[in-house]
Amino acid sequence: MKSEINKPTIIIDELKCKKNISEMSLKAKINKLNLRPHFKTHQSHQIGRWFMQEGIDRITVSSFDMAEYFSNDGWKDITVAFPANIREIDMINSLSKKINLNILISDTFTLSFLENNLRHQTGFYIKIDTGYHRSGIDYKNIAEIDNLIKMSYNSSNLKFKGFLTHAGNTYNTVDKEEVISIHNNNLCIMNDLKKRYKPEWPEIQISIGDTPSCSISDNFDGIDEIRPGNFVFYDLMQQNIGSCDFEDIAIVLACPVVSLDNNSNKIIILGGAIHLSKESMLNKNGEKIFGRIVRFNSNYSWESPEPDLYVNSISQEHGIINANKEFINNVQIGDIIGILPVHSCLTANLMARYTSLSGNIIDHFSSRK
Amino acid sequence: MKSEINKPTIIIDELKCKKNISEMSLKAKINKLNLRPHFKTHQSHQIGRWFMQEGIDRITVSSFDMAEYFSNDGWKDITVAFPANIREIDMINSLSKKINLNILISDTFTLSFLENNLRHQTGFYIKIDTGYHRSGIDYKNIAEIDNLIKMSYNSSNLKFKGFLTHAGNTYNTVDKEEVISIHNNNLCIMNDLKKRYKPEWPEIQISIGDTPSCSISDNFDGIDEIRPGNFVFYDLMQQNIGSCDFEDIAIVLACPVVSLDNNSNKIIILGGAIHLSKESMLNKNGEKIFGRIVRFNSNYSWESPEPDLYVNSISQEHGIINANKEFINNVQIGDIIGILPVHSCLTANLMARYTSLSGNIIDHFSSRK
Repeated sequence: MKSEINKPTIIIDELKCKKNISEMSLKAKINKLNLRPHFKTHQSHQIGRWFMQEGIDRITVSSFDMAEYFSNDGWKDITVAFPANIREIDMINSLSKKINLNILISDTFTLSFLENNLRHQTGFYIKIDTGYHRSGIDYKNIAEIDNLIKMSYNSSNLKFKGFLTHAGNTYNTVDKEEVISIHNNNLCIMNDLKKRYKPEWPEIQISIGDTPSCSISDNFDGIDEIRPGNFVFYDLMQQNIGSCDFEDIAIVLACPVVSLDNNSNKIIILGGAIHLSKESMLNKNGEKIFGRIVRFNSNYSWESPEPDLYVNSISQEHGIINANKEFINNVQIGDIIGILPVHSCLTANLMARYTSLSGNIIDHFSSRK
Repeated sequence: MKSEINKPTIIIDELKCKKNISEMSLKAKINKLNLRPHFKTHQSHQIGRWFMQEGIDRITVSSFDMAEYFSNDGWKDITVAFPANIREIDMINSLSKKINLNILISDTFTLSFLENNLRHQTGFYIKIDTGYHRSGIDYKNIAEIDNLIKMSYNSSNLKFKGFLTHAGNTYNTVDKEEVISIHNNNLCIMNDLKKRYKPEWPEIQISIGDTPSCSISDNFDGIDEIRPGNFVFYDLMQQNIGSCDFEDIAIVLACPVVSLDNNSNKIIILGGAIHLSKESMLNKNGEKIFGRIVRFNSNYSWESPEPDLYVNSISQEHGIINANKEFINNVQIGDIIGILPVHSCLTANLMARYTSLSGNIIDHFSSRK
C-alpha cells in the first residue's frame, strides 16, 4: 500500500483500536458500569460496529445529525451530550420517534420549550457542572435542580433520567494524581446528588464522561454510566495526561514530504491546519507543537515517536518539522512521514475517511452537508 | 430567513465580498499588475464567478484537487502555490493536459523527477524565501537558483516562468508600517533577482502573495503579479494587522445560543472548533480569543463587533462567550449570535457552504472526498 498514498491520509491500526475498545469494555464490565461510548471521536459506522461486537448497545454523540447518522446504522439508544439546541426541535422529534433519545437540559427555558414542542417520549439528563465550568448547573444550586425536576413531573414526553457531567478539567492536567483527585471529587458530588434524589427517583442514573478519568481511575463507586470517547484512538494530549502510552495511539496522519532544507534541517510536509487542525500542546521544553513524528514500516504500521521531533508550525496546508541532521539525512522528498495527532477527534473530523493497515477504507461522518 | 438557521451557518454579505473583489481588482489595474487571486480562501465556484465578472482569468490555488475543482468551472490558467508534491504526478499530468498549469519548485530533486515524468508543458516558478522561512530557496542562494534554472534549459515540458514569494511574515505584524517595511524589502529582493535574470529570460515574472502587503501598500514597483486570497472575506487577523476595517469582513458564523448562565454572564453557543477552527489571536488585553461577537439585523446583515465581547474558549462543538450583564440581558436561548472569524480561510474550509443575505446557498469545495 505504501506507494499509493499521495496526500494526507489517516492510517488506522485496527488492532490497536480494537484493543482500546475491548479494554474499556472490560473495565466497564468489571466495575458494573454501562459503557455508553462517545462516538464524536471516530464518527464511523464501521468503528461503531467494532463496539457492537463487544456487546455495546447504547452510545453518546455530540449533535443530532450525528445521532441520525448512527441511528441509520442500527443504533437505537443515543444520548446527545450537548446542551439541547431548541432550534433543532424538528430533528429531535424525528429522532425520538424512531430511537430512545436522551438529551441534556440545564435550564427551565429549554425545558418549557421542549415540554411544549416534543411529540414523543425523550429522556433527559440534567447537566451538572462539578468544576469544569463549561456548561451545566452548578452542583451547589439545588434550588434550580429541584425546580427543573419538579417542572418535568407533569411532562408527558420528557422523562428525567438522572445527572450527567463531563469533567473536562482533567484535560488540563499532566499528572495521573491530579486526574484522580478531580475524578474522586466528581464522584462525591455526583453521589451526593444521587442520594438526595434516589428516594423519589429510584431509577436515577449518574453518568460521567471524560477519557482521562475513565482510563486512569479504578474507582467508580456509585457511578452508573461512563461516556468516554477519545480512548478509541487516544492521542498526544492523552499520552501527556497519562491516559495511555504512545503505543496505544491508534491513528496517525501519513503526510508526503514536499521539501527539505538541509541547511536549516527543516522538513516541509503536505499536512497543515486543514488536516491536523490547529490544536497544539507544549512539549517538554515548553514549545508549542502540532504533532509528533513517527517512522512507518513497510505496511504503514508505525514505530514509537522519534525523540525530540515535532511538527513545529503549521499553516493552512504546510507542516514544518525542525529536524536534526541524523533524521533529515534519511528523508527524501516524496517520502511519507507519520504524524501522531495532538487531538485525534479534531484530526479525524477534518479527514474524510480512515485507511486500515490492510488498505481498507473506513467511513467517517461528514457534518459538511 | 432568520428563523431558518438552526445550526452554525456561514452568512456571506455578497455586497461586501464583491466590493473587496472590485477594490483589489482596481488596485491591480491602477498598478498594472496581473491579479491572480488565491482561491483557497473561498474555494467556491460561485464566488470565483464574481472574479470572472471583474475580468480575472487566472487564479491561484493550494492543491491539485482544488485546481481540478476550478478547472471544472472553466478556469484555464491556474498556479498551485504549494511546493509541488511529486506523489501527485498523475494529477499534475491530468491537469496540465487541459489547462495552463503552473507549479512551484525549489529543489533539484523535484525538478529532475518532474522532468522525467511530466507529459505536458507545465510552467514553474522558483519559490523564493525572502524572510518568512516557511519554504523556498533563500534569496541569497544564487548558486542553487542558477542551478535550477540551468537544469530546466533542456526540459521539454518544464517552462521557467519566474520567481514567486509569499511574505507570510506580514501576518505576524500588528502595524501597517511594519507590513510596508517587510513588503518593501520583499520588492527589493525580488527586483534584484528579476534584474539578474531578465537579460537571459526577458519574459521573467515576479509574483508576490500576501493579503496584508497587497491591501496596505501602494508600491508595487517591478512586480508583475499579485496573488492575495484572504481579502475576498478578510477577518479579525487582517483587521488587527490593518489590512481592512471591521465593516469589510464579508462572512460571519451564525450560531445558536444553547445555554445562558446569568450568574457568571456566560453564553454558550453551538459553534466550536469544528466550525470556527482553533485559530486564535490575542485581544487588546493579551487574552486568547477565537472570534468577536456581532448582532444581526432582521435580514442577517450584521453590525460592528460588540466592544469587549469575544468567543473566549472553544471545544469541539461548544463556544463560550464571557459576556457582561447588559449584553446577556438581551440574549435568550435559541437566539442566533454572529461570530466574526479570526481566520476566515479555516472557518470557510470547515463549513460546507455559504448562505447569502438573500438566502441563496453558495458552494464550497470539499477536500474531504
